[in-house]
Amino acid sequence: FTLLLIYNILTEDVKAEGPTIAEKDALLKRESGITEQSPMRLRMEQFIKQHQKQIVAELEKVDGKKFHIDTWQRPEGGGGITCVLQDGNVFEKAGVNTSVVYGKLPRAAIQKMRVNHKALDPDVDSLEFFAAGLSMVLHPSNPMAPTVHLNYRYFETADEFGNTNAWWYGGGCDLTPSYLFDEDAIHFHSTIKSACDKHDKTYYPRFKKWCDEYFNNKHRSESRGVGGIFFDDLDESEKDQEQLFAFAQDCLSAFLPSYIPIIERRKNMPYTEAEKQWQQLRRGRYVEFNLVHDRGTAFGLNTPGSRVESILMSLPLTARWQYMHAPEKGSREERLLEVLRNPKESMP
Amino acid sequence: FTLLLIYNILTEDVKAEGPTIAEKDALLKRESGITEQSPMRLRMEQFIKQHQKQIVAELEKVDGKKFHIDTWQRPEGGGGITCVLQDGNVFEKAGVNTSVVYGKLPRAAIQKMRVNHKALDPDVDSLEFFAAGLSMVLHPSNPMAPTVHLNYRYFETADEFGNTNAWWYGGGCDLTPSYLFDEDAIHFHSTIKSACDKHDKTYYPRFKKWCDEYFNNKHRSESRGVGGIFFDDLDESEKDQEQLFAFAQDCLSAFLPSYIPIIERRKNMPYTEAEKQWQQLRRGRYVEFNLVHDRGTAFGLNTPGSRVESILMSLPLTARWQYMHAPEKGSREERLLEVLRNPKESMP
Repeated sequence: FTLLLIYNILTEDVKAEGPTIAEKDALLKRESGITEQSPMRLRMEQFIKQHQKQIVAELEKVDGKKFHIDTWQRPEGGGGITCVLQDGNVFEKAGVNTSVVYGKLPRAAIQKMRVNHKALDPDVDSLEFFAAGLSMVLHPSNPMAPTVHLNYRYFETADEFGNTNAWWYGGGCDLTPSYLFDEDAIHFHSTIKSACDKHDKTYYPRFKKWCDEYFNNKHRSESRGVGGIFFDDLDESEKDQEQLFAFAQDCLSAFLPSYIPIIERRKNMPYTEAEKQWQQLRRGRYVEFNLVHDRGTAFGLNTPGSRVESILMSLPLTARWQYMHAPEKGSREERLLEVLRNPKESMP
Repeated sequence: FTLLLIYNILTEDVKAEGPTIAEKDALLKRESGITEQSPMRLRMEQFIKQHQKQIVAELEKVDGKKFHIDTWQRPEGGGGITCVLQDGNVFEKAGVNTSVVYGKLPRAAIQKMRVNHKALDPDVDSLEFFAAGLSMVLHPSNPMAPTVHLNYRYFETADEFGNTNAWWYGGGCDLTPSYLFDEDAIHFHSTIKSACDKHDKTYYPRFKKWCDEYFNNKHRSESRGVGGIFFDDLDESEKDQEQLFAFAQDCLSAFLPSYIPIIERRKNMPYTEAEKQWQQLRRGRYVEFNLVHDRGTAFGLNTPGSRVESILMSLPLTARWQYMHAPEKGSREERLLEVLRNPKESMP
């Protein structure tokens, strides 16, 4: 949700002297379309939009119902496409969102970002930036089917001549079951691991750990789910831009094969009313993480003028909080809690 | 929820040289009981515990079911009583909590509190403190019956000899309907106004405004509910301690007459499935406020070792989030939103 974060940093956009990168990109797209020689901004935009279409199409096949699609523009350049399927046959709520943002970073934001990106010029009052990403959360109705979250994004800043200055990739995906099927977790993790291993054998263990640390309901000493991968600020100090773009592409392309087999085998499983209620309690934990701990959500909501409905698309349709709920000894519910409180190092 | 906030400031308690105020108070209680000559700490504790019993008894009469009662102790002194009624006949979830906390404020917390309380010594590494309060949230099942929240608390610090140094009162109560009945809001506000007016004619308008400003979902430009009163940091610069104690007592005593007539006339009203769903969406907004904006909740949850179940007792049993939900033109749902987006200055 860094995109929304960035989007919302802007309370006003100041017109630069020369053409902005938004204007340059618009011209480039009109004149020559998007090729491998285009700036990374346009290639990333094209890639996430293509993938959004593909993911939406596959999820519609799984569900049988159609997504509702909202396209919105930013007057300063860029915009977004928010696709939501609510009260579906399979998905209680599914959101697949792309956004492309052009704007200016104020001095305070530049200072913060310099912690991770020394290429940023500390002596300017503002910098043009570009951000593009795809984010998605799927909450299935069936308590046996896990919630999944995914987000991949690209960020760059331009110098005063409109040339790329700092740039980086971030993102990840993670699985949140209410009932743990080991085979699902193993399939999900191993599909992601294969995508990572093609690029760097250290990626999967590093980014899996990062995911476990980030998606944690610290106030309950409990992971949000069974993990996946998470990374941020991957720039030229990690690998070159083409290599990292290829990595982000492979991660995003791994999503459908990582999740579709799982949702297909869980979507029609029988379940009891008690199992549905347990799922609702786990949904409550999901809300707690997103509203209390998720940095992008908190930042977005606390910034005037944000598109709240796109930020909170990630919340489940329904959730539940019961005082002092404790699962029965030896139950599947208790086993899930044990796993979430003690993430298994052994999980592939 | 300042109490929880304070409670959680403490990660460790350091034993002072002389007897702590907790030890002094325990001795006083054993030796002479609690009288009008007792320290305010003991009088406030007695007052909130008596009122908790009375409120629980009256709510049990309304509901027909009994509260579940948890009593918990803090090894350093003090403790709490958490009363919860869940899945009742009238209340989906009702929590009435008292807590009494003795501990030590670290230097950083003292510095922050000095903004409002100049009596605090800036040159000490820690200060003994005491905090006591009653907090309550009632979420009725019937969508025609409003949610109500209340919290009254007393705070003091002691100097190195165990004498009272700074002290203050805080609290308030506010009403959150899913369907607005003007007569309910008028009754609720006028009962509170009468309690305020007995003490100071400026209190009600000042504290009503404070309430409207605080209980606001800023990210949606929407009040949480139709308001009530809210105040904090009322100390000797406002009135003397006896006067403020009397004020807090009258405010708390006004609760039952302000709410019982409302719940009695709404608890058995007929309603539709669509009205129940609207209530669930409003519950979602309540969760958003408590998890995103409420300072005490956020602080408590982000502090290791807090009693999470007592903090999150305030959340409804169930809640709902729908993408881009908009009520029908001219509906009662739309009217509520209009009121929440433009709090009426004219409401008594």
